[in-house]
Amino acid sequence: MKHHSIIELIERKRDGGTLLPDELKWIIAEYTADRLPDYQMASLLMAIFINGFSTEELAPWTEAMLGSGEVLELGHIPAPKVDKHSTGGVGDKISIPLAPMVAACGIAVPMMSGRGLGHTGGTLDKLESIPGFRTRLDRDEFVAVVERYGFVMGGQSETMAPADRRIYALRDSTGTVPSLPLIASSIMSKKLAEGIDGLVLDVKTGSGAFMKDEPSARALAETMVGIGSAHGTRVIATLTGMDQPLGREVGNANEMAESLDVLAGGGPADVVELTYSLGADMLILGGIESDRSTARARLEAAVSSGAAMEKFQEVIVAQDGDPNVAEDRSLLPVAPHRFELTAPDSGFVRRCDARDIGVAGVRLGAGRERKEDNVDHGVSISVEAKVGDRVERGDVLAIVAYSDEDRLVGARPLLERAWEIGDEIAKPELIIGHIG
Amino acid sequence: MKHHSIIELIERKRDGGTLLPDELKWIIAEYTADRLPDYQMASLLMAIFINGFSTEELAPWTEAMLGSGEVLELGHIPAPKVDKHSTGGVGDKISIPLAPMVAACGIAVPMMSGRGLGHTGGTLDKLESIPGFRTRLDRDEFVAVVERYGFVMGGQSETMAPADRRIYALRDSTGTVPSLPLIASSIMSKKLAEGIDGLVLDVKTGSGAFMKDEPSARALAETMVGIGSAHGTRVIATLTGMDQPLGREVGNANEMAESLDVLAGGGPADVVELTYSLGADMLILGGIESDRSTARARLEAAVSSGAAMEKFQEVIVAQDGDPNVAEDRSLLPVAPHRFELTAPDSGFVRRCDARDIGVAGVRLGAGRERKEDNVDHGVSISVEAKVGDRVERGDVLAIVAYSDEDRLVGARPLLERAWEIGDEIAKPELIIGHIG
Repeated sequence: MKHHSIIELIERKRDGGTLLPDELKWIIAEYTADRLPDYQMASLLMAIFINGFSTEELAPWTEAMLGSGEVLELGHIPAPKVDKHSTGGVGDKISIPLAPMVAACGIAVPMMSGRGLGHTGGTLDKLESIPGFRTRLDRDEFVAVVERYGFVMGGQSETMAPADRRIYALRDSTGTVPSLPLIASSIMSKKLAEGIDGLVLDVKTGSGAFMKDEPSARALAETMVGIGSAHGTRVIATLTGMDQPLGREVGNANEMAESLDVLAGGGPADVVELTYSLGADMLILGGIESDRSTARARLEAAVSSGAAMEKFQEVIVAQDGDPNVAEDRSLLPVAPHRFELTAPDSGFVRRCDARDIGVAGVRLGAGRERKEDNVDHGVSISVEAKVGDRVERGDVLAIVAYSDEDRLVGARPLLERAWEIGDEIAKPELIIGHIG
Repeated sequence: MKHHSIIELIERKRDGGTLLPDELKWIIAEYTADRLPDYQMASLLMAIFINGFSTEELAPWTEAMLGSGEVLELGHIPAPKVDKHSTGGVGDKISIPLAPMVAACGIAVPMMSGRGLGHTGGTLDKLESIPGFRTRLDRDEFVAVVERYGFVMGGQSETMAPADRRIYALRDSTGTVPSLPLIASSIMSKKLAEGIDGLVLDVKTGSGAFMKDEPSARALAETMVGIGSAHGTRVIATLTGMDQPLGREVGNANEMAESLDVLAGGGPADVVELTYSLGADMLILGGIESDRSTARARLEAAVSSGAAMEKFQEVIVAQDGDPNVAEDRSLLPVAPHRFELTAPDSGFVRRCDARDIGVAGVRLGAGRERKEDNVDHGVSISVEAKVGDRVERGDVLAIVAYSDEDRLVGARPLLERAWEIGDEIAKPELIIGHIG
């Protein structure tokens, strides 16, 4: 690879210029090989943050990050390989019912998920509320599970996209996290390294999302769809609201229970709607259905026949978990103490703030304030009244299960301010639009 | 000192906000104490580079840098203490005749200088062309020489403004050098740490200067005058042209010889004019003269009486150099080979490019491409025709003394393109304006 002067490249980006594909690949290669010090990368990242990254720069940058480590080889699996990624929210357990449902219809889902950080939850933490369930799988085991059962749910491998891993850690400590192009390339480098044929994105917008407003969420979705297209991978994005939590349950074991409800044919309407919508996109991307209504009917059949739940149980067993949770929810942990938040007035719920509820969950122990924190899987917030619901004074707005009185003291003010009761208001649309 | 979150401070500067004095002092203190990693400082410096630094931010930032190490205590020296600093150019040897001349009039000059880097020369390198002359002085020796002889010329002490030293090295490797506020604070933190009562600045503009255009040079001058005023130190700046070299000689030993000429009452008109002008400012700032014409007369008397040359010889002896160079220029080194650049056409010199000539000097070995390079003190470029001069085809434009044929091959194309011959043009004004 041709050698470049890193200072000249930093200066060009600093002055608003454009970096060329060969230069971007060289930067990532040098950084991955420890020949570029963190301080030079930090300076470049700040220049990118402030001056932006064009589409022409983003594609080779992402390509270089995904090529910085191992890329999964799933060519020997005959099924179409499609994954789903959410930009993160509160109460977002969609991956859990979605993956087995789609796998039961013939799509292979090699799903790598993350842990909760900040106010948002993480799929790995929710999965680990199943007794024995193991999310640390090595590469061969990960491939073997998806090959045999049609889906797998594990953590990000250390050997995949190591450049992204290091750049993300550096951004986290240099004030360069909330940059649209850097977020987009980080997500896409990890997902494209899974060796998938298609990717369905759930891009969230609202108080509980990273993108607070719809235009920036839409821009993020379009950017990621563009990166996928430059890579030759089909990507469809759905824009969804995250002003209030998704579903009724916020936590870990309780979100797992709600996910099992959906696989059993029940569950809250919003979770069901979004799971089927994203699932239909996955079947279409995988080429096994061509329109949404037949795709949805096929997913519904996989649920009503019990095939989806059976698929989930197979993978629970394969990953050392107890498959009896499907029938016996008492196997899931529950925190010992109860607190009920009640409505101070009668009226309609005008706000049920996802971010406040998410932060309250973290303070109760359901999430992490620091990467090294442990999660209390039995802590839960059950949301009893959502935006547009009529409540009377004294009605229960939320039920909290907690382990530690001090933590409740920290969480309670956030819960109390999360709800606003007032004049009648329409229930918000969950699905705002589709991109790609 | 109150603790701050460095990430919050980086984010604020990233988003165009203002940092408070307490926060800026904390950043410098943490960085100096090795509690702030280079990558966080690099990210902050890039944000400052792009989004700027207000006057309210610059003063405490500079103050913190100068307070990060030792500040010279010269209170026991009764004479007024005034120094001079140039932002750097080609052929700029003014400090050498200036310091002894001013000292001979009763001003104490505790001058700390730098080495050549990039296309500009450095006073320390020029001084070291005197056999035996030593520029590395410890603090006590530095103070003793200025106390006894009225001036001293040494290198920057490692113990003074260490924050600036580290930040400068970091800027050098992160593409954040040419930032007006960062340049201004770097210069001023070092100079104010000398414990001086007044400072005269020579801010250069043109092809051979860091500031290519007059408005940015003027802005730099105003910024430095403002920082001085916030610190309570009087600062006067002179804006001077650097499109062509200053004087006739570019190199080291030859610039020393030209400096000795000025002290002996001769020398090129432009060097003489600028030396007396800056010297007059120093006498006025030191309070021993109140107007330019009497100040100039006093400096001229110091030269014609031989007092200025005698003062220089005293300090040469104090710093282990051979004082006989004053009478015998053959004690200065000269490179063995000669090359003459001749005019390709008859006409007037329209351009005699300072930057090209400076870079040619570096390639010949008179300067440094890397910090660790050695300087060849005998290499010289003698400029025989400057802007506005009439030349005939074949007339000598420059005489080069060099040691290494390969180096001449590298330097020659730059010399050939440095001169432009054409229609008549007026000789440019050297002194463009005064600030402060």
